[in-house]
Amino acid sequence: MARPVTLFTGQWADLTLDDLAAKAAKWGFDGLELACWGDHFEVDKALGDPGYVKGRWDILRRHGLNCWAISTHLVGQAVCDPIDGRHKAILPPDVWGDGQPEGVRNRAAAKVMDTGRAAARFGVKQVNGFTGSAIWHQLYSFPPNDFAEIERGYSDFAQRWNPIIDVFDNEGVRFGLEVHPTEIAYDFVTTRKTLEAIGRRPGFGINFDPSHFAHQFLDSAAFVSEFADRIYHVHVKDSKRRLDGHRSILGSHVDFGEAERGWTFVSPGHGDVEFEALFRALNRIGYDGPLSIEWEDSGMDRDWGAPDALAMVRRTDFAPSGVAFDTAFKRG
Amino acid sequence: MARPVTLFTGQWADLTLDDLAAKAAKWGFDGLELACWGDHFEVDKALGDPGYVKGRWDILRRHGLNCWAISTHLVGQAVCDPIDGRHKAILPPDVWGDGQPEGVRNRAAAKVMDTGRAAARFGVKQVNGFTGSAIWHQLYSFPPNDFAEIERGYSDFAQRWNPIIDVFDNEGVRFGLEVHPTEIAYDFVTTRKTLEAIGRRPGFGINFDPSHFAHQFLDSAAFVSEFADRIYHVHVKDSKRRLDGHRSILGSHVDFGEAERGWTFVSPGHGDVEFEALFRALNRIGYDGPLSIEWEDSGMDRDWGAPDALAMVRRTDFAPSGVAFDTAFKRG
Amino acid sequence: MARPVTLFTGQWADLTLDDLAAKAAKWGFDGLELACWGDHFEVDKALGDPGYVKGRWDILRRHGLNCWAISTHLVGQAVCDPIDGRHKAILPPDVWGDGQPEGVRNRAAAKVMDTGRAAARFGVKQVNGFTGSAIWHQLYSFPPNDFAEIERGYSDFAQRWNPIIDVFDNEGVRFGLEVHPTEIAYDFVTTRKTLEAIGRRPGFGINFDPSHFAHQFLDSAAFVSEFADRIYHVHVKDSKRRLDGHRSILGSHVDFGEAERGWTFVSPGHGDVEFEALFRALNRIGYDGPLSIEWEDSGMDRDWGAPDALAMVRRTDFAPSGVAFDTAFKRG
Amino acid sequence: MARPVTLFTGQWADLTLDDLAAKAAKWGFDGLELACWGDHFEVDKALGDPGYVKGRWDILRRHGLNCWAISTHLVGQAVCDPIDGRHKAILPPDVWGDGQPEGVRNRAAAKVMDTGRAAARFGVKQVNGFTGSAIWHQLYSFPPNDFAEIERGYSDFAQRWNPIIDVFDNEGVRFGLEVHPTEIAYDFVTTRKTLEAIGRRPGFGINFDPSHFAHQFLDSAAFVSEFADRIYHVHVKDSKRRLDGHRSILGSHVDFGEAERGWTFVSPGHGDVEFEALFRALNRIGYDGPLSIEWEDSGMDRDWGAPDALAMVRRTDFAPSGVAFDTAFKRG
Amino acid sequence: MARPVTLFTGQWADLTLDDLAAKAAKWGFDGLELACWGDHFEVDKALGDPGYVKGRWDILRRHGLNCWAISTHLVGQAVCDPIDGRHKAILPPDVWGDGQPEGVRNRAAAKVMDTGRAAARFGVKQVNGFTGSAIWHQLYSFPPNDFAEIERGYSDFAQRWNPIIDVFDNEGVRFGLEVHPTEIAYDFVTTRKTLEAIGRRPGFGINFDPSHFAHQFLDSAAFVSEFADRIYHVHVKDSKRRLDGHRSILGSHVDFGEAERGWTFVSPGHGDVEFEALFRALNRIGYDGPLSIEWEDSGMDRDWGAPDALAMVRRTDFAPSGVAFDTAFKRG
Amino acid sequence: MARPVTLFTGQWADLTLDDLAAKAAKWGFDGLELACWGDHFEVDKALGDPGYVKGRWDILRRHGLNCWAISTHLVGQAVCDPIDGRHKAILPPDVWGDGQPEGVRNRAAAKVMDTGRAAARFGVKQVNGFTGSAIWHQLYSFPPNDFAEIERGYSDFAQRWNPIIDVFDNEGVRFGLEVHPTEIAYDFVTTRKTLEAIGRRPGFGINFDPSHFAHQFLDSAAFVSEFADRIYHVHVKDSKRRLDGHRSILGSHVDFGEAERGWTFVSPGHGDVEFEALFRALNRIGYDGPLSIEWEDSGMDRDWGAPDALAMVRRTDFAPSGVAFDTAFKRG
Repeated sequence: MARPVTLFTGQWADLTLDDLAAKAAKWGFDGLELACWGDHFEVDKALGDPGYVKGRWDILRRHGLNCWAISTHLVGQAVCDPIDGRHKAILPPDVWGDGQPEGVRNRAAAKVMDTGRAAARFGVKQVNGFTGSAIWHQLYSFPPNDFAEIERGYSDFAQRWNPIIDVFDNEGVRFGLEVHPTEIAYDFVTTRKTLEAIGRRPGFGINFDPSHFAHQFLDSAAFVSEFADRIYHVHVKDSKRRLDGHRSILGSHVDFGEAERGWTFVSPGHGDVEFEALFRALNRIGYDGPLSIEWEDSGMDRDWGAPDALAMVRRTDFAPSGVAFDTAFKRG
Repeated sequence: MARPVTLFTGQWADLTLDDLAAKAAKWGFDGLELACWGDHFEVDKALGDPGYVKGRWDILRRHGLNCWAISTHLVGQAVCDPIDGRHKAILPPDVWGDGQPEGVRNRAAAKVMDTGRAAARFGVKQVNGFTGSAIWHQLYSFPPNDFAEIERGYSDFAQRWNPIIDVFDNEGVRFGLEVHPTEIAYDFVTTRKTLEAIGRRPGFGINFDPSHFAHQFLDSAAFVSEFADRIYHVHVKDSKRRLDGHRSILGSHVDFGEAERGWTFVSPGHGDVEFEALFRALNRIGYDGPLSIEWEDSGMDRDWGAPDALAMVRRTDFAPSGVAFDTAFKRG
Repeated sequence: MARPVTLFTGQWADLTLDDLAAKAAKWGFDGLELACWGDHFEVDKALGDPGYVKGRWDILRRHGLNCWAISTHLVGQAVCDPIDGRHKAILPPDVWGDGQPEGVRNRAAAKVMDTGRAAARFGVKQVNGFTGSAIWHQLYSFPPNDFAEIERGYSDFAQRWNPIIDVFDNEGVRFGLEVHPTEIAYDFVTTRKTLEAIGRRPGFGINFDPSHFAHQFLDSAAFVSEFADRIYHVHVKDSKRRLDGHRSILGSHVDFGEAERGWTFVSPGHGDVEFEALFRALNRIGYDGPLSIEWEDSGMDRDWGAPDALAMVRRTDFAPSGVAFDTAFKRG
Repeated sequence: MARPVTLFTGQWADLTLDDLAAKAAKWGFDGLELACWGDHFEVDKALGDPGYVKGRWDILRRHGLNCWAISTHLVGQAVCDPIDGRHKAILPPDVWGDGQPEGVRNRAAAKVMDTGRAAARFGVKQVNGFTGSAIWHQLYSFPPNDFAEIERGYSDFAQRWNPIIDVFDNEGVRFGLEVHPTEIAYDFVTTRKTLEAIGRRPGFGINFDPSHFAHQFLDSAAFVSEFADRIYHVHVKDSKRRLDGHRSILGSHVDFGEAERGWTFVSPGHGDVEFEALFRALNRIGYDGPLSIEWEDSGMDRDWGAPDALAMVRRTDFAPSGVAFDTAFKRG
Repeated sequence: MARPVTLFTGQWADLTLDDLAAKAAKWGFDGLELACWGDHFEVDKALGDPGYVKGRWDILRRHGLNCWAISTHLVGQAVCDPIDGRHKAILPPDVWGDGQPEGVRNRAAAKVMDTGRAAARFGVKQVNGFTGSAIWHQLYSFPPNDFAEIERGYSDFAQRWNPIIDVFDNEGVRFGLEVHPTEIAYDFVTTRKTLEAIGRRPGFGINFDPSHFAHQFLDSAAFVSEFADRIYHVHVKDSKRRLDGHRSILGSHVDFGEAERGWTFVSPGHGDVEFEALFRALNRIGYDGPLSIEWEDSGMDRDWGAPDALAMVRRTDFAPSGVAFDTAFKRG
Repeated sequence: MARPVTLFTGQWADLTLDDLAAKAAKWGFDGLELACWGDHFEVDKALGDPGYVKGRWDILRRHGLNCWAISTHLVGQAVCDPIDGRHKAILPPDVWGDGQPEGVRNRAAAKVMDTGRAAARFGVKQVNGFTGSAIWHQLYSFPPNDFAEIERGYSDFAQRWNPIIDVFDNEGVRFGLEVHPTEIAYDFVTTRKTLEAIGRRPGFGINFDPSHFAHQFLDSAAFVSEFADRIYHVHVKDSKRRLDGHRSILGSHVDFGEAERGWTFVSPGHGDVEFEALFRALNRIGYDGPLSIEWEDSGMDRDWGAPDALAMVRRTDFAPSGVAFDTAFKRG
């Protein structure tokens, strides 16, 4: 058999963990990647309530599921971002507080540290998430960027995340940034700079999600090869370009799934991601962690889509060759 | 003959108008599109100094050049933008003032109004420029956009630009927004919304520049056809995609011209813009204004490039057919 | 579940309805679209024999099948066409009569009216078919067309079909033209003109079949979006281009399936039709009628192909999303 | 130098031969291919008026022009076609007569015979033209073709053209069919059948025009190679596909040049024809006759386009290698 | 049902025939194509041991398997090749002997003759294999080839293989060359020359394997059509191009499966071979022999891959149409 | 102005240097790259005849030409190659001698050393050429390669070329290998290995010729960027792929220029090389040496082609930007 397949619970936060675990088990998943929102994995309870983490495991085990990672995308986003009203909608009230940007950022950083501690208590060594970025909004460079300012964005990231990773190191937990537009790293160039900014310290790696690469015309397999020693976790998610000369690759400021967008997220296997090439690259670098399906498709029923995506992974993520063919006898 | 060809002076602001006019005339241009920065066209002088506009015309006429438009991209950008340090670098000190955002926006709006008045005094009926945008930085939608906020961005634009266009209407001058990422309109969808926001009033149209469309995978000829009655001016500028699986279409936060970028601006005719299709579309809609070369290519000597671009336009912008063939006798 | 899937019986007219229904039921179809040739649905009997329509329903129900539409392609073709020997082979003798063109056209029109009446009696509200065209043969325009003559072709269509649609309106039945080369409408342009010619009256809509669009290089999803309010019925059929520089897209006057043709019909899922994009577009416009497999592939055993096509539809026609994701919590 | 370049006069029939010759000479053409309509080359006068052909030569020579071929597309079209009102518009009154189809066809055949005789008198050995086709209108095969009827179309062609070619053989003149949709031959398959139908007799060959191949997705160089011994004359004409998912490759029954068409004719060098590959193929088969520019572009001024096309041919039609490189010394 | 599917045993020579037959039967194969190496089919025993061939059949039949062909790729390779150290590794000691090239070639030829005799004794009429080539190493032509030397390569082939085919003819067995780089024939051109060199005698045909065509950019279906009467056996094998501007199509002198190669072999259905087009072509030429899966993919577990490949063939190799549709009634 | 443009004399060895220099000067070349065959640059005379090199310079200067490099492709090829009859045809008799391979290789190496000495005497610091390869013929790896043998090929190269480069170092001259199939390096992978094998010593670099990259699907600009510090000289040569499903990318063992080949050499600008991208890359790495046109096109007259190629270079090799635009003022 190949790698375990998990379901990321972030898009199912309207369901209780118990209900979702029942579904996932029925569909045949091997485990869940728990989101730190909804009731799936609550950091404060994990740290404050002695029985909480055992209770989470009880639910998972009852359904025959395992867990290899938890995820803190929403809080992580606020660590480096310029803060505006959109953050209020995704942050816990105690992180948002009075909404003063620097305070929000600091409270978010503290919460991510707690998430590392909670993961350790939970017995999971991988926390995935976002970092935010002080410079994302300068993407296009008009008015012309002061590129020293761009460099300061990477320093700001390092300054804010080094203390977090110090905590993670202490706890024996690693952070995996989901490389993604709006984050400090979203492609090859920015990932190189990001890793260098933080001194390539092992506590900070990548949760690789190919859906953010397909619409940028980036080669996911090549990324996995270049950053092989920092691929700590993998999402299975897909996106599809719908370019016809009328739809912009930039998204037109309309929501995902709108007919007018030049690309959108789709159920894994229905888009432009070349999963077989990606999985072969993961084989070459020796990645044996979970493939975690982050299911999102605004045009498909999710109960139809999740098992469809699982089946796609099962039929595509074959085991690598275990036989050293004697090449002298094999050709023809 | 086909349309006149002008040179936009914005990228040559280090030269005096006289020196630049001499070059342009020697290369064979028909006229100049004057930028409202450097010494090329100074709005305050045009309004305050009785002999100024005549002096400008004297320079142009001495070199046998004409003028159909002036441009106010830099000041226009500040009308709707969230203001930050980058604006300081491109704004006149009297517009920047104390740098308080709303004050900057208001002073920029006033300066654009003056630009319309100055154009009228100068005897030119077209002012091109940027609008800025209150919502551009929400491009990707993470944290998730409140799409009502996006709609408010269009209202904010209308509220700020309607009074400007009132002045333009009084002066008999029209504004041409260069549809462009970072502006309120940058593609088909956003242009539709922008024109609707301002009630499709005739004083507000488009300075069409195809270089901003090629890297978005948009069809310039189709755009010209759809917005035929608002194509008031045309830039000839080019961009080239350099996608190889490692370079992102989003630009990687590195400067134009860097080897790592997924696309960059290049001298007209050296990129992905399909100029013949565009010019044929302009013929179909009856556009007979200037084709204004905005020359920008960080990898080419500009004195080599400008006449090369002019030659490209001359050999591509053929006149439409003036003969009504008798189709019964023409086939074969 | 998604939409019902039916089998169009036109290519199985050598089997009795009872035999075909048994096969279709075994394969898992939800119903049949009955052709008005062979013994599947006989218009004259439906009107003349009081027990006929009940007998048809008995057969269907015995096999657990439903029916949402009947089809009259062959007779419909003769309503507008210039008539030649090829029509004799596909028309009932009483429609062909003496073969004088105008008489044939009139008798065909009367028979289509009867078909609408028969459908009503049968309790089915959708009749699909062809219209023929007075101008199709002028496709290439050499000798050069008199384009006023082309316009007269659309008028001729309206004049002949308005009385038919009057009958349909009376009966509460709608006609669905299969947009198709050789018909008055075969692409975007001609469909616009056709619908306008008949005043966009609701009784006349479209039976959309994407196989006729793929070889014309037309976008089926875009068509469905543009003509959303006239998509009354949908065929699932496929075609494949086989262009290699030696085979013409025009067909070379050789039969479908010949190796030398530049395109041919193939079993659904084996060709160039992008069914997922089409089905997503149908979701967006709210189409909830049947997907009717019109099976045709001269290189495949039909008993192998029909269930293969059904499986393709089942795995591709997923239900749209019924959940309004709380976008604030869903991203990542 | 390479091959001579001529201008086909068919699209310039509104000008007198003298006026057109003056233009062509000024542009630098080597000669004219004279159309048998307008006043350029009148068959009846050539046969009836003893001084006529000398007069034509006098005009040509005064302008320094040569002539290698005359063309009879319009009359030739009527030889095999079903005749309708469109033919009346392109035929001389004495050929149209009472418009009874078989009579028209026979008079057209007689006129083509006369054209061969006139060519001989004029001292030119090549007559180009169309054949018409009894079966073109059965292109799509619905109602389904009786393919025996298609075969009869080729026989009909042979029966009507063999007597014409007998006359040509007697006169020492060859006919060149412009392979073209609406003619008996329009692609590889139909050209094979056509040549076989007429026994591959040498008097009947091809006037190859690549503009009719590009929109069929056919390889012009491969055609020239396959039918090398029947390439008697070559037209330089171009066409461009404009497929965007909304425009059909079939033409939508709208005129050439309309924005909605999926392809149209354009000035040579502005379309999809790969002229260099074609000219290299002509070099390989040893074709040394004229390249005759048939200029047609509804979106371009013809006085701009004709010399532009000539320049394209001059810079693309290079001479083949005359040196047998000693390969032992040439590599590297 | 369609064609039988066999497994070529060459890549499984580390397993005994009995063990492999058990696997293949379990997976659902119809038979095995036995390699003449490992213990699968030993030529010397087949000729020398009276009970051997019955023993082989006993094993096959016990597992419900059939056999239509045996293969002698390794020994065949040595018949025409310049011999070097690489051959020693793939040849039986009695063929290698002292390693003197001409002696090796002659002993290899004798062994191939014996293989034909053994096949006859075994009751199988098809022997597949390689021929080697005296000229393969002159592929690029630098230093420049003496092309007379190339022609001598084909003569050398004919001279060495005619006596072998004489033996095959006597035994009623046919040879199938796997057209393949490194062999005398590897594409269209060289196959034409090879068949001509040997006088197109029926005893020498082709074991067609499309995996060797995909990386050459060759059309497998077209090959099958051109050489229809010599397609004696078919391998199902696949290859994938991985061109990204950095990997050469020539292979870089690194082993199959290395990340740096521009193409490599992959499990059938995971590469660039268009199997449906190939199988349809096989239907058109009437090939009803086995489809023999030669499984090779250095990045996939073979026990996962073999049944995956079998499933691909079963769902793609549909039966051709057995019904002559009455075309007059079928369209729509 | 940009870089000087020279003509490589290797394909013109049938002309005397004086005659060729006259042609090149007339066409407008800046200089010649002299081949060490024909009478253009004779190594033995340069070393043995005191007035020879001055005489060469006299000829060049009389025609206003310069020289930056000489080339020794033919002799260089023999240094590492397995020797066969093809080498005899390209080697001087004193190098060929008795034709014993190791002797030929040694004498070739000695001659290349002399070439370095002669270049120094001639006052030219660049010698271009080939290396040959002990392993090229193992390109495809069947019989399967022993990859240790491949590694030994690189060692053999280093062992034979290190002493040559010692001589070059002493003379202050550099060698430029033309990366090319049949040489030790022909793509990215093999160039990396080659440079490593020789310790990346500066005396051994690259004469980059993009024509050998286009048919391998390699990115010339990326190559120039990766090996920036070893790009010592640049050839301008072109090749064109002609893939149509019937022609193999491998060449079919037919000569360059044959219609059946999948690719061939063509005059610069007529093929698949992207010269502008290459020249921009050369600008970025600061290459300011000559662009040397190696003209080869078996389908074009060379006297037509050489000036056509020169014109292509002149219009494509623009100077890089010398102005540091003040980005704050340049955008729009």
